[in-house]
Amino acid sequence: MSGAEARKEAGSPITAQMGAAPGDLIHVGQAPDSAPHITITEFTRDEYREEECVLDESLHKLARCCAAAMQSEAVSWIDVHGIHDPAVIAMIGDAVGLHPLTGEDIMNALQRPKVEDFADYRFLAVKMARALPPPEDRDEPIPAAQIELQHISIVVTERVVISFQERATGAFDPVREHIRTARGQVRQRGADYLAYALLDAVVDQYFAATDAVSERIEAIEEDLAEHPDEGILGEIHAVKRDLIHLRRAVWPLREVSLNLQSGPATMVATSTRAYLRDIHDHTVQVIELVDTMRELIGGVRDYYMTVMSNRMNSVMKVLTVVGTIFLPLTFIVGVYGMNLAMPEVRLPWAYPAVWGVMVAIAAGLLIMFRKKRWL
Amino acid sequence: MSGAEARKEAGSPITAQMGAAPGDLIHVGQAPDSAPHITITEFTRDEYREEECVLDESLHKLARCCAAAMQSEAVSWIDVHGIHDPAVIAMIGDAVGLHPLTGEDIMNALQRPKVEDFADYRFLAVKMARALPPPEDRDEPIPAAQIELQHISIVVTERVVISFQERATGAFDPVREHIRTARGQVRQRGADYLAYALLDAVVDQYFAATDAVSERIEAIEEDLAEHPDEGILGEIHAVKRDLIHLRRAVWPLREVSLNLQSGPATMVATSTRAYLRDIHDHTVQVIELVDTMRELIGGVRDYYMTVMSNRMNSVMKVLTVVGTIFLPLTFIVGVYGMNLAMPEVRLPWAYPAVWGVMVAIAAGLLIMFRKKRWL
Amino acid sequence: MSGAEARKEAGSPITAQMGAAPGDLIHVGQAPDSAPHITITEFTRDEYREEECVLDESLHKLARCCAAAMQSEAVSWIDVHGIHDPAVIAMIGDAVGLHPLTGEDIMNALQRPKVEDFADYRFLAVKMARALPPPEDRDEPIPAAQIELQHISIVVTERVVISFQERATGAFDPVREHIRTARGQVRQRGADYLAYALLDAVVDQYFAATDAVSERIEAIEEDLAEHPDEGILGEIHAVKRDLIHLRRAVWPLREVSLNLQSGPATMVATSTRAYLRDIHDHTVQVIELVDTMRELIGGVRDYYMTVMSNRMNSVMKVLTVVGTIFLPLTFIVGVYGMNLAMPEVRLPWAYPAVWGVMVAIAAGLLIMFRKKRWL
Amino acid sequence: MSGAEARKEAGSPITAQMGAAPGDLIHVGQAPDSAPHITITEFTRDEYREEECVLDESLHKLARCCAAAMQSEAVSWIDVHGIHDPAVIAMIGDAVGLHPLTGEDIMNALQRPKVEDFADYRFLAVKMARALPPPEDRDEPIPAAQIELQHISIVVTERVVISFQERATGAFDPVREHIRTARGQVRQRGADYLAYALLDAVVDQYFAATDAVSERIEAIEEDLAEHPDEGILGEIHAVKRDLIHLRRAVWPLREVSLNLQSGPATMVATSTRAYLRDIHDHTVQVIELVDTMRELIGGVRDYYMTVMSNRMNSVMKVLTVVGTIFLPLTFIVGVYGMNLAMPEVRLPWAYPAVWGVMVAIAAGLLIMFRKKRWL
Amino acid sequence: MSGAEARKEAGSPITAQMGAAPGDLIHVGQAPDSAPHITITEFTRDEYREEECVLDESLHKLARCCAAAMQSEAVSWIDVHGIHDPAVIAMIGDAVGLHPLTGEDIMNALQRPKVEDFADYRFLAVKMARALPPPEDRDEPIPAAQIELQHISIVVTERVVISFQERATGAFDPVREHIRTARGQVRQRGADYLAYALLDAVVDQYFAATDAVSERIEAIEEDLAEHPDEGILGEIHAVKRDLIHLRRAVWPLREVSLNLQSGPATMVATSTRAYLRDIHDHTVQVIELVDTMRELIGGVRDYYMTVMSNRMNSVMKVLTVVGTIFLPLTFIVGVYGMNLAMPEVRLPWAYPAVWGVMVAIAAGLLIMFRKKRWL
Repeated sequence: MSGAEARKEAGSPITAQMGAAPGDLIHVGQAPDSAPHITITEFTRDEYREEECVLDESLHKLARCCAAAMQSEAVSWIDVHGIHDPAVIAMIGDAVGLHPLTGEDIMNALQRPKVEDFADYRFLAVKMARALPPPEDRDEPIPAAQIELQHISIVVTERVVISFQERATGAFDPVREHIRTARGQVRQRGADYLAYALLDAVVDQYFAATDAVSERIEAIEEDLAEHPDEGILGEIHAVKRDLIHLRRAVWPLREVSLNLQSGPATMVATSTRAYLRDIHDHTVQVIELVDTMRELIGGVRDYYMTVMSNRMNSVMKVLTVVGTIFLPLTFIVGVYGMNLAMPEVRLPWAYPAVWGVMVAIAAGLLIMFRKKRWL
Repeated sequence: MSGAEARKEAGSPITAQMGAAPGDLIHVGQAPDSAPHITITEFTRDEYREEECVLDESLHKLARCCAAAMQSEAVSWIDVHGIHDPAVIAMIGDAVGLHPLTGEDIMNALQRPKVEDFADYRFLAVKMARALPPPEDRDEPIPAAQIELQHISIVVTERVVISFQERATGAFDPVREHIRTARGQVRQRGADYLAYALLDAVVDQYFAATDAVSERIEAIEEDLAEHPDEGILGEIHAVKRDLIHLRRAVWPLREVSLNLQSGPATMVATSTRAYLRDIHDHTVQVIELVDTMRELIGGVRDYYMTVMSNRMNSVMKVLTVVGTIFLPLTFIVGVYGMNLAMPEVRLPWAYPAVWGVMVAIAAGLLIMFRKKRWL
Repeated sequence: MSGAEARKEAGSPITAQMGAAPGDLIHVGQAPDSAPHITITEFTRDEYREEECVLDESLHKLARCCAAAMQSEAVSWIDVHGIHDPAVIAMIGDAVGLHPLTGEDIMNALQRPKVEDFADYRFLAVKMARALPPPEDRDEPIPAAQIELQHISIVVTERVVISFQERATGAFDPVREHIRTARGQVRQRGADYLAYALLDAVVDQYFAATDAVSERIEAIEEDLAEHPDEGILGEIHAVKRDLIHLRRAVWPLREVSLNLQSGPATMVATSTRAYLRDIHDHTVQVIELVDTMRELIGGVRDYYMTVMSNRMNSVMKVLTVVGTIFLPLTFIVGVYGMNLAMPEVRLPWAYPAVWGVMVAIAAGLLIMFRKKRWL
Repeated sequence: MSGAEARKEAGSPITAQMGAAPGDLIHVGQAPDSAPHITITEFTRDEYREEECVLDESLHKLARCCAAAMQSEAVSWIDVHGIHDPAVIAMIGDAVGLHPLTGEDIMNALQRPKVEDFADYRFLAVKMARALPPPEDRDEPIPAAQIELQHISIVVTERVVISFQERATGAFDPVREHIRTARGQVRQRGADYLAYALLDAVVDQYFAATDAVSERIEAIEEDLAEHPDEGILGEIHAVKRDLIHLRRAVWPLREVSLNLQSGPATMVATSTRAYLRDIHDHTVQVIELVDTMRELIGGVRDYYMTVMSNRMNSVMKVLTVVGTIFLPLTFIVGVYGMNLAMPEVRLPWAYPAVWGVMVAIAAGLLIMFRKKRWL
Repeated sequence: MSGAEARKEAGSPITAQMGAAPGDLIHVGQAPDSAPHITITEFTRDEYREEECVLDESLHKLARCCAAAMQSEAVSWIDVHGIHDPAVIAMIGDAVGLHPLTGEDIMNALQRPKVEDFADYRFLAVKMARALPPPEDRDEPIPAAQIELQHISIVVTERVVISFQERATGAFDPVREHIRTARGQVRQRGADYLAYALLDAVVDQYFAATDAVSERIEAIEEDLAEHPDEGILGEIHAVKRDLIHLRRAVWPLREVSLNLQSGPATMVATSTRAYLRDIHDHTVQVIELVDTMRELIGGVRDYYMTVMSNRMNSVMKVLTVVGTIFLPLTFIVGVYGMNLAMPEVRLPWAYPAVWGVMVAIAAGLLIMFRKKRWL
């Protein structure tokens, strides 16, 4: 069963939402592979507490934790893996007081990156890129995508940060490690800095992804210079496709990171703004990297096509040289194969003479081809 | 009769309006397939009433209904299918008090999407996209368009929403269903929310249309990887053409959805603005999807062309290999077919010797071609 | 004499103005085909008077008419066909009080579209497009342009509108007809509405022109699908060239129509502004149509090239199949044509055996080609 | 010695300035062909005086003239041909009071067009384009550039205009002629109008240059339609290169001409502003002309490539038709040339039968090719 | 070991920073080739002192110097070569009071060009381009990059300028020379002018780099016109790649140089602003040069491809002419080689008659090819 058929059977993710009323919580995206998994981290400058709950257990416990987090003086980070369960999203939404459309946006894995300010919270939707390991089966005409995009939502209230990921990726592990070990400034600062740290981790993933693409382009270029064959074409096409998707994911991030800097003072401490400006810088850098790589892969494709065209040229030259030399010679020997009454046939030196003429013709043609630089 | 001729006879839709005075009601678009069909829905938070009238019956009844709707305390939705009858448009225009140019815009199926604020009402013109089912006859060189665009106009007054469609499509059925079943917020809110819900339904159709195009691109890519033949070319061309038209339809919607958010407070309740912002988000997402798909189909076309060019390369290689091997051999056997006095002919080992030379030449050439990677 | 030579002899229109002092009245453009022809129309809500004067007669009469028009209470429309006579332009300029540069702009058929506000009047320069009938001689490699562009200037004072056209085209006839028959609002309103009506007529011509181009593109696409030959190439090139010129003519109109809406209240009645906004809408629509058609014709060209390339592919396949089958067979029969002592020749079953081998080779190759999908 | 080597020896113009302190007067550009040549024109409404000095004579005289011009009540125009002599530039700079960077800009022939307002003067740097006559030797693969760009600087003080040109071109002759003959308004107005007149002369040169390019494009198109050969390719490439350089020269002029309109009232009389707006109009027109021509030449190149590709197609068709017909026939005659025991050989009607078969095969193939439209 | 493998082993520079907390000092870039090397220059209008310290010696000495520089009345310039040692950067950061993110930016060789204003200092990050000498081994399919980009950071406080370079390049030597010899204005002015002078040196390097690229393009064009072969293709590809990287380096400099002009008066003296405007001018000029060269190399590539395609055309023509002439002739001689009973064979004039027919056929074909312009 081909990919397109499989997808058609599973029901298109986009059309799943059609006909729903605005605010209805409907999951749009790939089918989940496991139950949601939630980690709640509470910390102050001095203390630190971490609690995990797999959602098979009980929604009540989660509701209690959320409510506690909202009222606690400490900074809390609720990290949700898995966005396909409306009950979980609705429960968290109620506990934190989210607008219905925010819930819809969290569950819609196709949602475009954006930042929205609500009365009590700020909502962030971004895409996270991840470079997949190279496929084992390298013989497919067009290799599969090697960049995986994931929908990430972050809700920031005064003291609570809630992050939603489609799948566990480990991208936020460094941040959690910094909290645990009280390294860096994250323990000294509030929810706004924590949100920044998460966003920074997301942007860092883009650097890794572009780095992987950059290595693939270099590998293609080396292959091309050494032994250009047709397999490279599929590789080039796959890189181009990955870059198109990567660019679509990162492009809106520019606007998002710019808007982030202009929030109200209650949401973003002035000292955090310099860090947000840094995020913006990095985002612009990723976009320029992606654009540069698009131009590079475009140049590589042009190079490939011209190499192939030149190779065709040299194939044709061989055929032309061989044909141009042997067609006249074959004609000559054909003449003396005729059963007509040919007077010269009986001459004893006819045979060497014919050979002489043929060698002269062949030599003349070879000299001409050499002058034309075909040989 | 070819399509162009047929179109010429039917009279070009655009030129139909030339020479008319501004404000003249002239239908510009495809010939209608049936009489206009109007559904009037009146609802409050508690009550709900629906009335249908096919326009063969009587214009008076419609006039009465419209006038009633304008004065009623309830929210009314007048849904018109078919925009080709000037009498109907003029009658509704009079009842609601529309500017002459608005009437002209409603009947002009080629009107560009826009939003215009008048004293008493807000006028919205948009395009609705619909993915048609794939054609049965797949042997045409260039498949017909699979995206159908339709002209939709929406007039919003304080309590009345009038929607005009070219043909019945069922796109607004979910909204009507929500009204009937009092699901979602549409019964609780005013005309502005109803207009939003209709626009949301229009934008949802774009997602379905882009989804269909996306599936076609994936199918083309699979075909290309498995058995690239010439039929794919027409398919690629058709998808490109559909995307050009789709983009032209959705591009102005960006501006429209942005302008919608900035209307006067009497027209748009503050609580509705968040929803309009959501529409804008979705529109931008559709535009980006269309652009991404344009890039993808462009990449697919490049891939197709290079595959075809490589295939030509391999065709030429076969000819060159065969020609380069057999032309010299044919020459050699031609030599010994000559009726000249050839001394070596009489030697008993001449025949095996000639065979030996020929095998050596063929083997040498084959080794050379293998080294050149032509085999 | 080729076109370029003819043009060189006639003197380039652009360079004609070089060396002139600013404000000098020098005609830049194609040589006129007849004397200027002027029609003066005066109307109020109730009355209507029309007067024609061919400029061979007398400049004095025209001067008198212009002066009368300037002082009359009625709205006057002075419609000038032919802009090559400096005396006429100077006389009208004096009567109406035009700036010297305005006179220069009126006579310069290469002037870019613009709107300029002077103390007493508003000056409009636009291009009018007209689709020419298809040429009779269809065998030229590159068909001539089928879009004719014309320079139109409109001067609007409080009560007088003066329009200048290069040649008579009939584009303003509907407006004159509306004045005569008092249809539409033109008789009820002032000079600003009349100017709008003229501009509307100009924009309508663009729709007709794009419509003609659109039909040509459709015709090309049909030709391409049915019997692609080389004549189509010239047609595609001609359409592209027409669209380049059309776009250059209509693009500045966007700015012009936008600026028109922001004039002082004495020049443009508030009620007219809605109509000017409509003109802007239509202009944007024409630009988008032209852009869409540029993309379409680009797609058609790509399609043409790929079709041609595929055709070449199939030509090569035929040669390769024939060559690959018959070159080895010809070699084999050549072997047995040799005059060497070949032992197997004398065997009675040698002839059928050779045929058997040859048929086997041919069949094997045919099967191989079928598997490669070359047949 | 090739051009690149020659250039390397002469020292690159750009790198000449590296290592210099800002404000150092160093000539950057092509080596001058003669000593600077200066013309000083002084005029009022009634009087007029002109003085020439070749700079071999004496710098003192020039210094005296400049000083006199600065203090005179009349309007003075100092026209300098040749910008390679630091002494001259420094002397004039001292006399007029120029900023060190202005002197640097005057001598830098690679300086980008710009306008700068200083306390006492306004500095203008523009490029002037000039169409060179077509080269006599038309056999070069890539013709040399036919557009020559020149660096022009204009300094405008309250009563003095100083213009600097690299070489004498005669572009300012019409302005001088107008001053001499008191034609136009230049004698009635101040230094600002004179500067405008000079700029107008520069822009007029662009029209002449684009006109020349336009004629070359037309000539190429005619050649292409009549007898497309490989020489056209170099011509197309040369026109593209000229347009790239032309565009780079004229593009910044847009900004310059826009900024010119917004100077302080002491520098630009209000009555002159309308003329500056006219310059801006013309500049935009030139840019659009250049862009249009870039698109046209791009279209011509596409056309050329497709024509060449079609020609290749027809070449291949001839080979394929001939090969496909004669390879089987040659095989057949080869069969009956074999020295095997062929029973049918002895039949009396064998020879006509073989001819019959061969004619049938050839006729069948010809019919097939005609149906495929290859003939 | 190929380049990509080597790079993978060395650890990708980008990913080195992932997982670090913001503000951590981690070197991102190529491994350094030697220990950091620092030069401290102190000067006033009258005095001048220069001190070098290689960082193997002692950090304490450096710390002392920095502290002294901060408190001195003189202007100090601390020039650091080598940015890979966190201890050095941290020490300088402490002495001068830099924000943690500034230190991170200084050590990140991939940092995008930017200008940031902090309370006490202004931070500048730019790229410096340097043209490398042409490679000795010219036989590689794709030559290596010939433009080397380097990360330069400049910190400007009221009296101290600190510059950081990755490697010693000599680009700042002219500035140091001006300080030593008190030439130009650098000794008369403050730290802001010194920073300008350094930036000016960086921009000058871009001119040298574009100049080198321009010479390479000219060399390619000459090669192409004289003897186009396949080696040129790699050269074109390498130039394109260099221009892509060059453009990415210089493009953000435009924004940087624009922002520089708008700093607070305490940082930038008014008299320096004119010089900063000059830098901006030059930057824009470099960008336009790079863009022009991108278009030029694009045109050269098109030219190359068309030349190659034309050459293929002429190869095919030769084969077709030879094949079309000799295939029929070989058929004819084959006919008379048949062992059938051919009546005409016995005629005495048969042999000359056959020759006559063959010569006639060959002549006819040659005339036809000449008329088709294939010969």
